[in-house]
Amino acid sequence: MVRKMLYSLSLQTRIFDFHSSAFVAVLHEKDALDLGVRALDRVEVLNPKLKRSAVAVIDITEREVRKGEIGLFEELRKELLIKKPVKVEVRAVPALESVSFIRKKIRGEKLSSVEIQKIVQDINAGKISELELSAFMTSVFIRGFDIEETVSMTNALLSNGKRIEFAKKPIVDKHCIGGINGRSTLVLVPVIAAAGYCIPKTSSKAITSAAGTADSMECLANASLPLKKLKQVVEKTNACIAWGGALDLAPVDDKIIKVEHPLKLDPQGQIIASVMAKKAAVGSKFVVIDLPVGPEVKLASEEKAVEISEKFKKVGEALGIKVKSLITNGRLPCGPAFGPALEAKHALQILEGRVFDSMAEKSCRLAAVLFSMVEECSEEQGFKRAKEIIESGKALEKMQEIIQAQGGKRISSEGISVGRLMQAVLAKRNGKIVSASVKKLATIAREAGAPADKGAGVWISAMPGSFVRKNDVLFEIFAENERKLAEALSLAEKLDAIEMQ
Amino acid sequence: MVRKMLYSLSLQTRIFDFHSSAFVAVLHEKDALDLGVRALDRVEVLNPKLKRSAVAVIDITEREVRKGEIGLFEELRKELLIKKPVKVEVRAVPALESVSFIRKKIRGEKLSSVEIQKIVQDINAGKISELELSAFMTSVFIRGFDIEETVSMTNALLSNGKRIEFAKKPIVDKHCIGGINGRSTLVLVPVIAAAGYCIPKTSSKAITSAAGTADSMECLANASLPLKKLKQVVEKTNACIAWGGALDLAPVDDKIIKVEHPLKLDPQGQIIASVMAKKAAVGSKFVVIDLPVGPEVKLASEEKAVEISEKFKKVGEALGIKVKSLITNGRLPCGPAFGPALEAKHALQILEGRVFDSMAEKSCRLAAVLFSMVEECSEEQGFKRAKEIIESGKALEKMQEIIQAQGGKRISSEGISVGRLMQAVLAKRNGKIVSASVKKLATIAREAGAPADKGAGVWISAMPGSFVRKNDVLFEIFAENERKLAEALSLAEKLDAIEMQ
Repeated sequence: MVRKMLYSLSLQTRIFDFHSSAFVAVLHEKDALDLGVRALDRVEVLNPKLKRSAVAVIDITEREVRKGEIGLFEELRKELLIKKPVKVEVRAVPALESVSFIRKKIRGEKLSSVEIQKIVQDINAGKISELELSAFMTSVFIRGFDIEETVSMTNALLSNGKRIEFAKKPIVDKHCIGGINGRSTLVLVPVIAAAGYCIPKTSSKAITSAAGTADSMECLANASLPLKKLKQVVEKTNACIAWGGALDLAPVDDKIIKVEHPLKLDPQGQIIASVMAKKAAVGSKFVVIDLPVGPEVKLASEEKAVEISEKFKKVGEALGIKVKSLITNGRLPCGPAFGPALEAKHALQILEGRVFDSMAEKSCRLAAVLFSMVEECSEEQGFKRAKEIIESGKALEKMQEIIQAQGGKRISSEGISVGRLMQAVLAKRNGKIVSASVKKLATIAREAGAPADKGAGVWISAMPGSFVRKNDVLFEIFAENERKLAEALSLAEKLDAIEMQ
Repeated sequence: MVRKMLYSLSLQTRIFDFHSSAFVAVLHEKDALDLGVRALDRVEVLNPKLKRSAVAVIDITEREVRKGEIGLFEELRKELLIKKPVKVEVRAVPALESVSFIRKKIRGEKLSSVEIQKIVQDINAGKISELELSAFMTSVFIRGFDIEETVSMTNALLSNGKRIEFAKKPIVDKHCIGGINGRSTLVLVPVIAAAGYCIPKTSSKAITSAAGTADSMECLANASLPLKKLKQVVEKTNACIAWGGALDLAPVDDKIIKVEHPLKLDPQGQIIASVMAKKAAVGSKFVVIDLPVGPEVKLASEEKAVEISEKFKKVGEALGIKVKSLITNGRLPCGPAFGPALEAKHALQILEGRVFDSMAEKSCRLAAVLFSMVEECSEEQGFKRAKEIIESGKALEKMQEIIQAQGGKRISSEGISVGRLMQAVLAKRNGKIVSASVKKLATIAREAGAPADKGAGVWISAMPGSFVRKNDVLFEIFAENERKLAEALSLAEKLDAIEMQ
């Protein structure tokens, strides 16, 4: 449409105090007809005084703006540096090249690295609408990314996000393809840092689970660290446990994850690219991936886990990062705790040497994989080393150092404040516990208020394999609010989260 | 997430004078966290006084609303009958069943008619976001709809739209899988109506072309007929030529077409369902489909045309509608005119018996197909009959009747007002015209102001096959505005729309 580049209208701006991930402008239908554009097409808006322009996705209205006006959403207003109503020049722009590349993926063709780079740039620049991004992720889900495309996407995310340089080397990292409870990161990080390696860990908050690592860390210290502070913490302690969301490391990834959520799209290539870009952005050279396998977690079978671990390895090779995966047990809860404070408490109990359970074991195995890569030792030697670091108290000491560097106070597992209300769920008869559903327990913990109420959650008293008598405690529900406690209890009655034989 | 059904918040409404195709509500991020919902999740909003509730897609903000408030977009406010700020009850709702069916299609599974019905109902109810709809159409494009799914979609569109009953029988109709100029509808409809059959034609406005049938009809009469008026017109004249958009016959289809536009998605099954639902909604029993084939129109090859014609036929059978397709020439312009008034003028010239060119021929062939179905005659006989109806002046008389019934005045082709400005594009040398690009000529017509400026457009003077001398007129550009004329001319200089040997 060559026409579109020539013809422009001069329109009066009107500000909508409204935010969106793409730049959005609103046109009256008559002006849209005049410009030859439809809803969801794009226009270029030029602020002539400042000679600033931006490309925006348009919405068309009969009512929100009058003919002769253009509505600007907040991001667009800011981009154009418009403070009070002015006249802007508006012209239709031809279809974006990046959108034609999205169409290429929809048609089933492979994308080149240049094409993926262009798409990611335009997502970053707010030119791609959520609707287009959703179509893109749907096509990536259906058509797939091969290894080359995954590497291209990783590089594109990396070059359209922030990088952080750390002086200490080597930098190591860990990622879990989630769905399981237990904050092994809170055990692993101090073990690795105590061994002298640099592990600047960024973590997420809970999405569908009862707690994310960042939620648990917030019970111990400040997890929202500005970049400068984060660097200081790492400089001082070899480590950090920070909320990635506060750092805006991967702005494009955040937009992608937002549109993937409604349809629970999880294209494997995109997941791998997203993880690896974040690792590369902090300069990691050795990464261990925790792959829990079980019917209720993301990876349902060992084959799927092996498949994704191979891809992680190959993408890592292309980026100069050594990646090893560890397939772990996702069929059982990883430790007794569900909920931010309870999971933090459990991690501290391990560091304090009070318990050495399945989560402690998993944490040491993950550390062992990292040691085996960095020191070229066997995983057995690595495991022994990790366990010794915990037993010697060095890991606990390192954790206290990290907590204090992040603005927290020395704290023991007993000192962590959990929900002020508690109610136990009891066994209805004598018998053997045969299973405990990670999903149902997480749902009960969320009903009790987790993760928003930090002290809320569930603590299992009787793990699968153990025998209980009638009226023994199966699990305790913690809450900060009576209504939520009652709702969680009533849900627990229905769900049968812990099954007995 | 069972939790979500139990816990609710009482929030103060705040109205956003903003429209969207789905119901949209805006929550403060703290309230969202408390409810356990993320951006693009859904909440149920209850207006307790009136006991009215609706499910809305949410957006999450730190700024547009305060904690304790909920922003309502216009459609949602209307649905809840809220006039001034009130307290509403807000609770998270579990994932929609229809969204799980969309995910099923994404995974490549076939959808049942019940599932498609549910999806379409939820689109109609404003529960499906544009982003989800975009993912759905992307998956339909990639995975395809088989005949059964196409029939299900047709029925679902039909039962979620309006139907119009006409007393006259049989009802016949025509559809063109577009991309070509020439308003054969303006010739076909009066021919069919003059033969005594009922043809209540609804048409669209131009999207990417220089004119739609509704745009051209607006140069002759009123094309935006309310339902009651439309029925009167058909009762009186056997026909109408109305803008479908004014009737809101297929509200779901309109939403689907909107989201398909940015990525130019045109899943074949969806196109067929959309066309057939509109035909069934007015009770059509015989339908002819015009399938122009050429490198610049929607159908690039004869094979594709045959494939889609077979599908139309099968879907028609399932609905009790007899469908025949006609493959037509999409390689050349269909008549000399591009632009609303010019194309109307050309159609009237044919009805007046002044010309009998390729568009007249095509119109008669389309009429012949309809006659052959309704009267069980041969297409040759049908063609002869159509031509006679034109030559006898009956078609012209019928067209005048329709124009007057739709509020227009008797008009001749000479009486149609075209752009007040005209500039001819001349041959640069002697030679033979070898081709004329439909796409380029339409682009020049749009640059001149079509379809918004009704009189603007292009009129070809020298058709492919003819010989011209230097400075002979190749085509004329009409416009209503000097700037647009100049822009169209400058574009014409560059585009080489008419090629000479």
